[in-house]
Amino acid sequence: MINLAAGKCVACRGDEPMLTEAEIEDLKFHVPEWQVRDVDGMNRLERSFKFKNFAQALEFTNKIGAIAEEEDHHPRIITEWGRVTVY
Amino acid sequence: MINLAAGKCVACRGDEPMLTEAEIEDLKFHVPEWQVRDVDGMNRLERSFKFKNFAQALEFTNKIGAIAEEEDHHPRIITEWGRVTVY
Repeated sequence: MINLAAGKCVACRGDEPMLTEAEIEDLKFHVPEWQVRDVDGMNRLERSFKFKNFAQALEFTNKIGAIAEEEDHHPRIITEWGRVTVY
Repeated sequence: MINLAAGKCVACRGDEPMLTEAEIEDLKFHVPEWQVRDVDGMNRLERSFKFKNFAQALEFTNKIGAIAEEEDHHPRIITEWGRVTVY
């Protein structure tokens, strides 16, 4: 059983192979809340989280930021009133 | 002389007229770093700010967030490594 949440980020060297469609399908099963979107020919993982207001959204952005710093792997985070989107 | 920085936000009622092209041109003169972009037929103000790393970018996001709460007017903020985009 794969445990994605227990995984750690490792810096890319730039020559890693892309995931195959079959591998993506298998991994998506473990993180069904995440969408895979094709952006300019590159697959991108994306998920939106809803909140009651702007302050809660920004608080969540800071939590993601803390983990991103710890892992040295930084997503793009869109913070807006009541919603945070990570990709 | 118009002083945009001294202005305060007032909640829209929803029936305010859009700025005319001439008004936009006049106001852009005062904030040349901001771009006006057409997104689905709506004009959107956008500006990117560069930073040395993720932590500084996130710190700036929080500063914008504090002003947004104070003004009760919340932009969309994209935080990423070395850059914050506001729109």
